[in-house]
Amino acid sequence: MPYALAIHGGAGLIRRDALTPEREAACSVVLHAALDAGEAILAAGGPSLEAVQAAVLVLEDSPLFNAGRGAVLTGAETVEHDAAVMCGRRRAAGAVTGSTRIRNPILAARHVLEHTRHVLLCGPGADTLASEAGLAMVEPSWFVTPERVEQVRRAVREDRFGLDHDSGADDAYGTVGAVACDSAGHLAAATSTGGMVNQRPGRVGDTPLIGAGTWAWDATCAVSGTGHGELFVHRHVGARISDWMDIGGLDLTTACDRVIAELPAEAGGVVAVDRHGNIAMPFSSAGMFRGAVSASGRTVAIW
Amino acid sequence: MPYALAIHGGAGLIRRDALTPEREAACSVVLHAALDAGEAILAAGGPSLEAVQAAVLVLEDSPLFNAGRGAVLTGAETVEHDAAVMCGRRRAAGAVTGSTRIRNPILAARHVLEHTRHVLLCGPGADTLASEAGLAMVEPSWFVTPERVEQVRRAVREDRFGLDHDSGADDAYGTVGAVACDSAGHLAAATSTGGMVNQRPGRVGDTPLIGAGTWAWDATCAVSGTGHGELFVHRHVGARISDWMDIGGLDLTTACDRVIAELPAEAGGVVAVDRHGNIAMPFSSAGMFRGAVSASGRTVAIW
Repeated sequence: MPYALAIHGGAGLIRRDALTPEREAACSVVLHAALDAGEAILAAGGPSLEAVQAAVLVLEDSPLFNAGRGAVLTGAETVEHDAAVMCGRRRAAGAVTGSTRIRNPILAARHVLEHTRHVLLCGPGADTLASEAGLAMVEPSWFVTPERVEQVRRAVREDRFGLDHDSGADDAYGTVGAVACDSAGHLAAATSTGGMVNQRPGRVGDTPLIGAGTWAWDATCAVSGTGHGELFVHRHVGARISDWMDIGGLDLTTACDRVIAELPAEAGGVVAVDRHGNIAMPFSSAGMFRGAVSASGRTVAIW
Repeated sequence: MPYALAIHGGAGLIRRDALTPEREAACSVVLHAALDAGEAILAAGGPSLEAVQAAVLVLEDSPLFNAGRGAVLTGAETVEHDAAVMCGRRRAAGAVTGSTRIRNPILAARHVLEHTRHVLLCGPGADTLASEAGLAMVEPSWFVTPERVEQVRRAVREDRFGLDHDSGADDAYGTVGAVACDSAGHLAAATSTGGMVNQRPGRVGDTPLIGAGTWAWDATCAVSGTGHGELFVHRHVGARISDWMDIGGLDLTTACDRVIAELPAEAGGVVAVDRHGNIAMPFSSAGMFRGAVSASGRTVAIW
């Protein structure tokens, strides 16, 4: 069976005048590198769960996107990471929210999936688990870039709370995620984020919430979302797409388009795959950093 | 239109030999008091959102159930509360997870719904918000009862992690919740819990996760779940029931039965109402503390 992989680096306003050719090229390089990392595993016959994790690791490690290093800051100028993975074969997930010291939150989410009886761990409990598991830990200040401090101070001054991309100027970054179908037909999804600029400390968005920003089930699809997290939670976007396929009999593209259309305008977007290797990447925002590789070839795009 | 209210005090094994007649009677008194509190609002033409909050407040304040005072303890012998409310009319929710000092977590969830731009706040961020909002705060030790300390130490000794009810002996308590349809046909749901005995600190179950343990949408139903939280998250139980109605065209009872049947055996149960005032209270566990009041009269039951 042909494999398929789709990734995103966030949806939002992404003002064309704010995204310099240099930054656009740099983002494109990272998106290609993430596709490379995931595809290497899939091409070798490896599992989709490893592929989405590998792709998200590349995106977390890049300060160009809102995850891992370079994540946006809360109103208290702190970093709080959220991440989730879901295995469509086992229909099981792992996630963390509000971690502050885990270098790669996606690895902590994977650890929750593989080695605990829980789905989601929050706050210090997530940091403690990751540390006990021997994952790489860093000081919270390691994640903070001067650009992010300047960004959140501007947002606080203007009493603005929003998507990273909507902050204008040079703030064209976003939540990251990946979905994949491997050659055995198994699906997986992974999502990682620093949340929204100027969010309240402790705020949990859709990323670590299974069925909202992250979802995978072999019978239907794998979904990773990006956008206004609260809307994605209220409409349980990931599971809703799955239910439109499973209960409603829609195909992947129609189900994704339908659920994006059910959301308020400009809410965001998703990347999704089904077990036949079909890919959908709809969004209602002005743009979404995204990339895909499948039997149809490779694409990387923003608008 | 006739109003309807259904509540639960947890699902689980609930060993008949462990539930003395005295405790059973005491639980029944509290369930009736919770129904009284919610019904008083509905009978006066008040909103379902106020009714479910009032019912859950009564259950949180009783040490007989696993919420508020008397909540079960984590493996670190600490209390971590989760609570959520959802308004079916606005299709909006508020929730907290991992709070340790909020006397009534359901009020903090309501505050998140009404006064923040977020859906879910975790850990110290939830406590801080509640404190700023002027909600009653207590020392974490106020929630801890000697019975709960004994219970978790037994679970740690036996390396057991599970539903409150499954802990045997005199541990017949559970997560609490309420759903209601008011005379205007608006739906609401509220759920509150201390989680699972001997859970890892930081563990988040289904209760505060919108679409899993708590769900309300006027077009379909309001749902409050109780049981093995992780299973309810993996199957997005609340929203799945809603999707079976909305997408699949099933009625409330058939949709609830179907989703409970999709879960592994003995996973738990739900209470649910639709906009016509129909009530469903299915469970796959041995028992579920529950009560309902509607045009059909009032019931309180365990098995």
